[in-house]
Amino acid sequence: MMARSGADFLKALTAPRSVALVGASSNPKKLTARPLNFLRQHGYAGRILPVNPGSDEVMGLPAASSIREIAGPVDHAYILLDADPALAALEQCAQKGVAVVSMLADGFAEAGPTGLARQARAAAIARDADILLIGPNSTGVVSTASGFACTTNAAFATTTLTRGHTAVLSQSGSVIGTLLSRGQERGHGFSTLVSLGNEARHGVGSIGSLLLDDPNTHAFQLFLETIRDAEAIEAFARGATALGKPVVAYMIGISEEGSRLAVSHTGALTGGRAAVSAFLRDVGIHEAELFDTLIEAPHALSRVRFPVTSARRATVISTTGGGGAMVVDQLAARGIEIGALSNAARAELSAQNIPLGHGKLVDVTLAGTKYDTMKAVIDRLIRDPETGVLVVAVGSSAQFNPELAVAPIVDAVRDAPKGAAPVVGFPLPHAPESLALLESAGIPNFRTLETCAETVALMLRPAPAPRIPAAPLPAQLCTRLDDLPGGLQSETVSGALFETLGLTGPGTCLIGPHDVLPDPLGLAFPLVAKLVSPDLPHKSEVGAVALGIASMAELAAAIARMKSSAKDHCPGYRLNGVLLQEMRPGLGEAIIGLTRDPLVGPVVTVGAGGVLTEIYRDTSVRRAPVSLSEARDMISEVKGFAQLRGYRGHPLGDLEALATAVVALSRLALAPRIEEAEINPVAIMAPGAGVLMLDALIRLKEDATS
Amino acid sequence: MMARSGADFLKALTAPRSVALVGASSNPKKLTARPLNFLRQHGYAGRILPVNPGSDEVMGLPAASSIREIAGPVDHAYILLDADPALAALEQCAQKGVAVVSMLADGFAEAGPTGLARQARAAAIARDADILLIGPNSTGVVSTASGFACTTNAAFATTTLTRGHTAVLSQSGSVIGTLLSRGQERGHGFSTLVSLGNEARHGVGSIGSLLLDDPNTHAFQLFLETIRDAEAIEAFARGATALGKPVVAYMIGISEEGSRLAVSHTGALTGGRAAVSAFLRDVGIHEAELFDTLIEAPHALSRVRFPVTSARRATVISTTGGGGAMVVDQLAARGIEIGALSNAARAELSAQNIPLGHGKLVDVTLAGTKYDTMKAVIDRLIRDPETGVLVVAVGSSAQFNPELAVAPIVDAVRDAPKGAAPVVGFPLPHAPESLALLESAGIPNFRTLETCAETVALMLRPAPAPRIPAAPLPAQLCTRLDDLPGGLQSETVSGALFETLGLTGPGTCLIGPHDVLPDPLGLAFPLVAKLVSPDLPHKSEVGAVALGIASMAELAAAIARMKSSAKDHCPGYRLNGVLLQEMRPGLGEAIIGLTRDPLVGPVVTVGAGGVLTEIYRDTSVRRAPVSLSEARDMISEVKGFAQLRGYRGHPLGDLEALATAVVALSRLALAPRIEEAEINPVAIMAPGAGVLMLDALIRLKEDATS
Repeated sequence: MMARSGADFLKALTAPRSVALVGASSNPKKLTARPLNFLRQHGYAGRILPVNPGSDEVMGLPAASSIREIAGPVDHAYILLDADPALAALEQCAQKGVAVVSMLADGFAEAGPTGLARQARAAAIARDADILLIGPNSTGVVSTASGFACTTNAAFATTTLTRGHTAVLSQSGSVIGTLLSRGQERGHGFSTLVSLGNEARHGVGSIGSLLLDDPNTHAFQLFLETIRDAEAIEAFARGATALGKPVVAYMIGISEEGSRLAVSHTGALTGGRAAVSAFLRDVGIHEAELFDTLIEAPHALSRVRFPVTSARRATVISTTGGGGAMVVDQLAARGIEIGALSNAARAELSAQNIPLGHGKLVDVTLAGTKYDTMKAVIDRLIRDPETGVLVVAVGSSAQFNPELAVAPIVDAVRDAPKGAAPVVGFPLPHAPESLALLESAGIPNFRTLETCAETVALMLRPAPAPRIPAAPLPAQLCTRLDDLPGGLQSETVSGALFETLGLTGPGTCLIGPHDVLPDPLGLAFPLVAKLVSPDLPHKSEVGAVALGIASMAELAAAIARMKSSAKDHCPGYRLNGVLLQEMRPGLGEAIIGLTRDPLVGPVVTVGAGGVLTEIYRDTSVRRAPVSLSEARDMISEVKGFAQLRGYRGHPLGDLEALATAVVALSRLALAPRIEEAEINPVAIMAPGAGVLMLDALIRLKEDATS
Repeated sequence: MMARSGADFLKALTAPRSVALVGASSNPKKLTARPLNFLRQHGYAGRILPVNPGSDEVMGLPAASSIREIAGPVDHAYILLDADPALAALEQCAQKGVAVVSMLADGFAEAGPTGLARQARAAAIARDADILLIGPNSTGVVSTASGFACTTNAAFATTTLTRGHTAVLSQSGSVIGTLLSRGQERGHGFSTLVSLGNEARHGVGSIGSLLLDDPNTHAFQLFLETIRDAEAIEAFARGATALGKPVVAYMIGISEEGSRLAVSHTGALTGGRAAVSAFLRDVGIHEAELFDTLIEAPHALSRVRFPVTSARRATVISTTGGGGAMVVDQLAARGIEIGALSNAARAELSAQNIPLGHGKLVDVTLAGTKYDTMKAVIDRLIRDPETGVLVVAVGSSAQFNPELAVAPIVDAVRDAPKGAAPVVGFPLPHAPESLALLESAGIPNFRTLETCAETVALMLRPAPAPRIPAAPLPAQLCTRLDDLPGGLQSETVSGALFETLGLTGPGTCLIGPHDVLPDPLGLAFPLVAKLVSPDLPHKSEVGAVALGIASMAELAAAIARMKSSAKDHCPGYRLNGVLLQEMRPGLGEAIIGLTRDPLVGPVVTVGAGGVLTEIYRDTSVRRAPVSLSEARDMISEVKGFAQLRGYRGHPLGDLEALATAVVALSRLALAPRIEEAEINPVAIMAPGAGVLMLDALIRLKEDATS
């Protein structure tokens, strides 16, 4: 059998020549009768092949008793049977050479060990037979261009199925109905909608990648409950960015309760929410905070082509002071810079006696309800290099004179030169006709204040940085790792591993049990001194640690005192030496950690350390390894470093050295044996003086094969 | 002239027998022609009296040349003239005995000193003539029941003006159009809508209070840019709570840019956002985060009567797992406890073979699209004492079978006994018919996920605590305050003032320059010792301070060392004594402050102190004075006290004593001379050991009259 190409799969997914409905019922009230009904209703022109061992015919079509009995090729099959018979049917699909199979049944990964075994079996069959497997737990696939409504989802009883350019990939089958209905109400059309179910073998990433080649798909709308295939999702998302096809995701689980439901519902893992959000941002997927933004943003973003500016800036024009101020407020609250009028623009427009307000809102007042005035202002600002996105907030005229209110916006956009600023429209009142007019002119338009602001913020987000491969780990480190046992490593071993990456701790020196103290020591006072002995596990309790030693004389006295105290507490203890270490408290501290998230893989975290970092969740998270520029961004996101950035006259810290340390630690992600690594705390010195690791920890996988 | 009663004003505001339109134009295209047009269009049956010195008739009605020329009484006047002529017209209204006057003109408080003087004049005229003054900068007043659309707001060109029970009070005239249009689209009606403008004399509070007696008004929708009359607003809001009439406010200014626009737009002050939010919450006004919640919540809250439970709990029923999980996620993210099925309820419903899911979502799956199933589940849960609010999230059936989908909800609510849990409906798809059916059955219903969740959160909020008058300040403190000069007080004076409120610092003792050290000292070691001398302003630099003194012997040595060091640095210095103070670092620290917010008056703030409290804005703010129970709530809101609450095994702190200290400091709000007071830091000891003020500060008003 020749391997199928992406084009073969795409065709079989979105416009198959034939589809088998395995287990299709003749009873029109049954769930399993729906796919046949919907395919007919929406005008699918391919062959519909019901399979039903109990009946020769299903709703007027001849039925085969099994898949193998079907005459001729089958591109796509939707298996509507319960779990075990569904697996048997999948086997038959494999034998028959079906390219795409969707499975409705539940009873797989979400259903304990038996279910997990079933799911592994389904995935193996699909792998071996080169099948694109959708589900199980899938309500099916719908493609509007071909009328291929191969689904059990009640939402497709809709009489209209608007063709359009947004593909839907949803881990919840039922939510597809919500997305379809709400999108169509807004005049948005869809290309292909896929209920991904359990993603036994193919999921968001692989099916998304396939749809990148679909000329009907310009944008993606993802509803997520988990991340099962981070690598495939990354490939898909980066491909989408390269093609200018925006991907917007809404993921449940902002609360503990929500996360728990996502798990119980699908048998999926939940990862750290911060890690998942970092992953999505990193690969260029826009995460929607508001559900309505999931509805609006894919469509809006796909209609805007504009030079990506480094400034996150928007200019707001309004006819109504209060309404315009609301828009400015919401944009600014999302970190968007509000562009004021440039002096040149203000002078030119004022010369035409156009009122402009005096604050950052371009408030043209009632004058803006005149076509000429509004057109002149938009024309001018759309060409202003200082404009980022132009947001036009239209008042009551949008409701009563939709043509007049919208005409200057539509005409200005039509007349705009290449490279002009993108324009979005937001009518303050309920104004469906104005929205429709903007829509038909290709101008992004919004019904709600917050969705408008959130989508504009997404428009202004810089494209994700390309992934630069991290430098390979030093050979010395790799060799060392091979020799170590699994589990948590000692501080000394962990520190030595970090040192191979260029990270250093404070100066140390081990004095043999019978050595005379060298003078000079080669260490800077003050020092910490500890007795090294296998018999003193709790050094502080037996007086075998001394802090703040300021001179050679104090050191000699401290050693004598420690020995005497240790002898009192533990007569006959063995002394292996005295460990001296410089005390270097730094101007501030940080914590840097590497963990492996079960969903998205290795992530590096940086925070200011201490209990308050935990309490305030004030950390920055990225997928590891990170580049120096990413590490700098991370540090700038941590509020707790404000003091080291000079807040209230605090001395500056060497945050550049901290960034270098973050990069170094993040590179440990490249060593698969490293399960976890942490430096806590890192002492941060003055600029140029670097950072010091005061306590380091590495945990290796218990399995010794690397 | 007999003083007018509230009923007189209410009548003249909402249903005047006659209205003068001062400056009404005959040119139908002019703004000043709108009120006459709108009054006719919406069927106002009273006398319309245009006033226009240049014309005998305005749009078919005889016009008077001035207000005083009008024959017969005038209840209400809308002055459409520019600022100065408008003031003259207001004088005439005063002479004529008009009860309510609205003013359109700008050029008042927002327009510099001249404008401010005009505004003061307008307020004085209104005060002297017992006029209810609306504006200036007001687009007018509309009352639906009487068809009194006395407004220049273009939004009232609407052909329908839905009568209903929500009153709108807006500081932005244009936003009234947005509220009207969006509310009507949702089938909500309005009672009276007032454009408050600059609130020269009457504003949110006084006009709101007047409308409390309006039988048509069951709820209030406020759009705020500032707070001008905090006391009047409090009286209004507490009155509304007492009558069960919910008040919901949206206030711009969540961003700096938004705040700045509010100021420039209206000439209003902006206060601290946290202080304003604390004020609104304190008086029982629901602050809406989403603008759509301002549209939905007043109406929804006014339709729900339910026993206020102390638990913030909601139970979610859904036919669709993914959609139901979204609702749970959003509710839980707002701090709402998700009610699981009680064991009893689960047993009863399972016995009827109803699927219920296993998580906290009551997921009745497709079975829930059957009337009997959904009715049985709602019937059971509505009666369950463990249910707080019941949220029914309806899937595709809401779109395709609105009658069937909504019938079990409507019937269950109709059949519910007194005291049953309130029910709200949220269709996941776009389902206007289902929304309308819920609406006509009086069941709160929502179009968007987040607005549903936010409104349910508001429903579950406890009623505001009644204001308990704080105990008067001790006479000793008041006498002391009278004698002090204005400005910042010394630490000693500030500390002494706080001591009259029962707050104490660490033990101190002054040893005369020639005294022998008493033994025992009556202080707990360790101590700080300082030489007291007018000649040693920088004590640390000359060695005149000693820390960590652990015994009498160390103290004697330290005093000798300090004297010798001071003598070396400053021969011949005068010694007034040695100040000894206990070193009491505490288990943690707090900062407590009292300030006077320009908008809402005295507020007390508590935080964990230090720079991080500022960086993370981790403080709790309430209007001062506070009760002990409020102080406890404040402390529980501060994340930085997590350690003192035992986070990660940290020793507990005496947070009860801290609450007492917050109450004590907050009482200083009662002394008008105190402009600002702060204890920073407060050291927090172990439970039972209290708190100590380590540094205290009081600033008095420069004006010495108290």
